[in-house]
Amino acid sequence: MINKLIANIKEKDAPIVVGLDPMLSHVPQHILNAAFSEYGETLEGAAEAIWQFNKGIVDATCDLIPAVKPQVAMYEQFGIPGMVAFKKTVDYCKEKGIVVIGDIKRGDIGSTSAAYATGHIGKVKIGNNICKGFDEDFITVNPYLGTDGIKPFADVCKEEKKGMFILVKTSNPSSGEFQDRLIDGKPLYEWVARKVAEWGDDCMGGDYSYIGCVIGATYPKMGEVLRKIMPKQYILVPGYGAQGGKAKDLAPYFNEDGLGAIVNSSRGIIAAYQNEKYSRFAPENYADASRQAVIDMREDLKQAFVK
Amino acid sequence: MINKLIANIKEKDAPIVVGLDPMLSHVPQHILNAAFSEYGETLEGAAEAIWQFNKGIVDATCDLIPAVKPQVAMYEQFGIPGMVAFKKTVDYCKEKGIVVIGDIKRGDIGSTSAAYATGHIGKVKIGNNICKGFDEDFITVNPYLGTDGIKPFADVCKEEKKGMFILVKTSNPSSGEFQDRLIDGKPLYEWVARKVAEWGDDCMGGDYSYIGCVIGATYPKMGEVLRKIMPKQYILVPGYGAQGGKAKDLAPYFNEDGLGAIVNSSRGIIAAYQNEKYSRFAPENYADASRQAVIDMREDLKQAFVK
Repeated sequence: MINKLIANIKEKDAPIVVGLDPMLSHVPQHILNAAFSEYGETLEGAAEAIWQFNKGIVDATCDLIPAVKPQVAMYEQFGIPGMVAFKKTVDYCKEKGIVVIGDIKRGDIGSTSAAYATGHIGKVKIGNNICKGFDEDFITVNPYLGTDGIKPFADVCKEEKKGMFILVKTSNPSSGEFQDRLIDGKPLYEWVARKVAEWGDDCMGGDYSYIGCVIGATYPKMGEVLRKIMPKQYILVPGYGAQGGKAKDLAPYFNEDGLGAIVNSSRGIIAAYQNEKYSRFAPENYADASRQAVIDMREDLKQAFVK
Repeated sequence: MINKLIANIKEKDAPIVVGLDPMLSHVPQHILNAAFSEYGETLEGAAEAIWQFNKGIVDATCDLIPAVKPQVAMYEQFGIPGMVAFKKTVDYCKEKGIVVIGDIKRGDIGSTSAAYATGHIGKVKIGNNICKGFDEDFITVNPYLGTDGIKPFADVCKEEKKGMFILVKTSNPSSGEFQDRLIDGKPLYEWVARKVAEWGDDCMGGDYSYIGCVIGATYPKMGEVLRKIMPKQYILVPGYGAQGGKAKDLAPYFNEDGLGAIVNSSRGIIAAYQNEKYSRFAPENYADASRQAVIDMREDLKQAFVK
């Protein structure tokens, strides 16, 4: 799946992943009205609204984008109906040939991590049948529990040729509270990075590993150091745009081959029509605004490659 | 909710939480047969089987146990139908007056943590309605992202009078890989513990905080140190039984008041009938075996209070 991700990135010439993280406040009134009139102001109504919202964006951008990253929390907030909308979104994007990164940040002890891996990127045996749960292409994973929490995910990645991105240095302001603390002279995130490189060596696709990492766009100096520690890891880069990360700072996240990183934008794309810059798009044309925002992001990211 | 948990523990005289972490391999054949004949060997069939299995155990033990801790991974592995079984389990246990700790180990940047908190212990506004997603009483949370990843959970805990247990020192063998690394002479888990105490101070129920912690039964010496750093935190203790933690080692997890910790057992209770010790119980009487295992665990845990 890392090879498919890379092929998609090359084909679309855009190291972009769209964060499908819908809040009800992002959804235009006409979609809310239609959903609520069918299902009421209920969890089902909200789930229908975010699904229709996503579908519009995917339809309008699928020829431009290699991947999407639905943040499962945004769906879990609507309970079971929300999870149904998550699953519909995953399936729809895959039908369109888009790689799906489930941003689930799971991580637990061995047997529990194995169940998460089964549910999100693997298969489960039920009687004599083999079934799939959520069936994303990639997931994100939290490393706090160490190797035996990661290995079950790696095993499933190898078996299914799927992938994961392990949190190394997150984009949020207080990520440094634990991640930056010095251990034998090096910050914790570097120790995690060394482990990620080690885990990843055992799971190579071609030039890149099935096991990648997450490094926030908001910490470019750390990105530079971490790129060297993990040359074969694809870096999933959150924090561009709304959180403050700038394209010109992202050069160190990429390798000499122009690959090695994929930059996420969520609100900047999906809620583009609410941004003054795209105010020429009416709420009814929110998906066209998202398409324009992808085109602009693709252009903006070229600054990362200016030497 | 911390006060309800403590009241339940006192009333049942048992600092016990039953881990409702069903694998299909735990479920007796007669339940599998019934579920598969109704729904086929499908995700729906598996979900029905684990739900009926859980229901049997809850019915047989609800007068003895203060709390349950369904591990959401075991449900997520069966996709949407699995999540429906999770929600049914949560609701059923609450109807029976049992406190429900959703073992979800979520944690993300601020806005995403807020969505998880909303979905699992909070409320969401949909149009003019207020709805609830999964509606557990407590959840478990991963601290790797720092304060801004925790604060949204704490805010919802305060508002809803619900609670959370933050991972400090997990029970698995490689938990030490990152958690034990020394930072300014103290292990990372101690730094996390100090933060948990600080976050918890702002969320007091009575003698104890709405914000507790997770410390594995497999690391009793660390438990002793951590108890002192976090005197007002309830400690959720995994790793007793199947993972190797012994009752006599758990004394330091409790405070002088005999409170302050709740010990989890999953397989040891729910799959008791598969244990040689309980082989007198036929698979049809698996729930009676679970009941006996709870009684034996309650007795065993008294060793933690022998001075």
